[in-house]
Amino acid sequence: MFSPLIKELIESLRCLPGVGPRSAQKMALHLLERDFQGADKLADALREAVDKVGRCSSCRTLTEEAECQICQDPERDAKRLCIVETPADVVALEAAGSFGGRYFVLLGHLSPIDGIGPEELGLDRLETLVSHNEVEEVIIATNSTVEGEATSHYIAEKLKQMNVKVSRIAHGVPMGGELEYVDGNTLALALEGRKTL
Amino acid sequence: MFSPLIKELIESLRCLPGVGPRSAQKMALHLLERDFQGADKLADALREAVDKVGRCSSCRTLTEEAECQICQDPERDAKRLCIVETPADVVALEAAGSFGGRYFVLLGHLSPIDGIGPEELGLDRLETLVSHNEVEEVIIATNSTVEGEATSHYIAEKLKQMNVKVSRIAHGVPMGGELEYVDGNTLALALEGRKTL
Repeated sequence: MFSPLIKELIESLRCLPGVGPRSAQKMALHLLERDFQGADKLADALREAVDKVGRCSSCRTLTEEAECQICQDPERDAKRLCIVETPADVVALEAAGSFGGRYFVLLGHLSPIDGIGPEELGLDRLETLVSHNEVEEVIIATNSTVEGEATSHYIAEKLKQMNVKVSRIAHGVPMGGELEYVDGNTLALALEGRKTL
Repeated sequence: MFSPLIKELIESLRCLPGVGPRSAQKMALHLLERDFQGADKLADALREAVDKVGRCSSCRTLTEEAECQICQDPERDAKRLCIVETPADVVALEAAGSFGGRYFVLLGHLSPIDGIGPEELGLDRLETLVSHNEVEEVIIATNSTVEGEATSHYIAEKLKQMNVKVSRIAHGVPMGGELEYVDGNTLALALEGRKTL
């Protein structure tokens, strides 16, 4: 019994992750009843982002510029490259603040079942980048999931043929983590990756 | 480290109810990385709704037409009026399908602390409607909360002076509700509102 435009808005809101029919209805009515200004701002922001945001020509992260700010920054060491799955991973690593190199964003992981192969992840672009910038070290920081590990393995094999040092970020017990509550797989990785003191 | 347009989108998404900084970031990246088509559709739907949706001139519900579909329907009994707080309440009552009259939507409840008084709820408009349509019965279906009850009480007092039959929807044990799990206040109301068999 909602009017067509409100129905359409409710339907469209369901494309947001974790939003079902009830929350979509709640969101639509909240915007139209109580936060008209916010709705107006959101409509503008979304339209602008959809029209202008694309991929960085160098590292493939999301940006509205031709090249993202990190790739434009001459202070960043182009000889070290960190490979991550998503732009959110770049933000997380930047927040940690200990990496001064550049990034390469896969925007996903190998997943043959979804039709995501090496081309979709831009691996040819990665190889060009590595040889063009004379990259010395590639750090693979894909997620520690089955797909992330498979992707890491595939990329490592490819890059090793190019005479590049390839490393994988360490896996183990997180800072502040109590051994008692850490899962078995992580503990096994932590033991395997032990360092001599 | 997100680009300005993406930051703006994340910020704007936070006007949605129940969306904090983390979910807003997740939503923005989901739209831009994986559901560009959905994002485009949402931007259009939101812009259209913000520009065109307003209030029904008769019952004040949200609609893009001058008068909503229920108020336009000549089959609906204009002599019975059901007062609800929000358009979602109209949808819920319509889904129940047992009311053939018209509605009046307050779009809120009396809340002096938020500056919501009788004018904001359109109570003058309600009085005009009641006398103009020669309404015989007004059913008050505001929520069963402190504010809803206060609003109900206020409206009932106003309308009684106009020689209209005013009723309040019944409160009691919901259908299928097991007595054991129903709260004390509801049980007290159910006992108080008992019917002779």
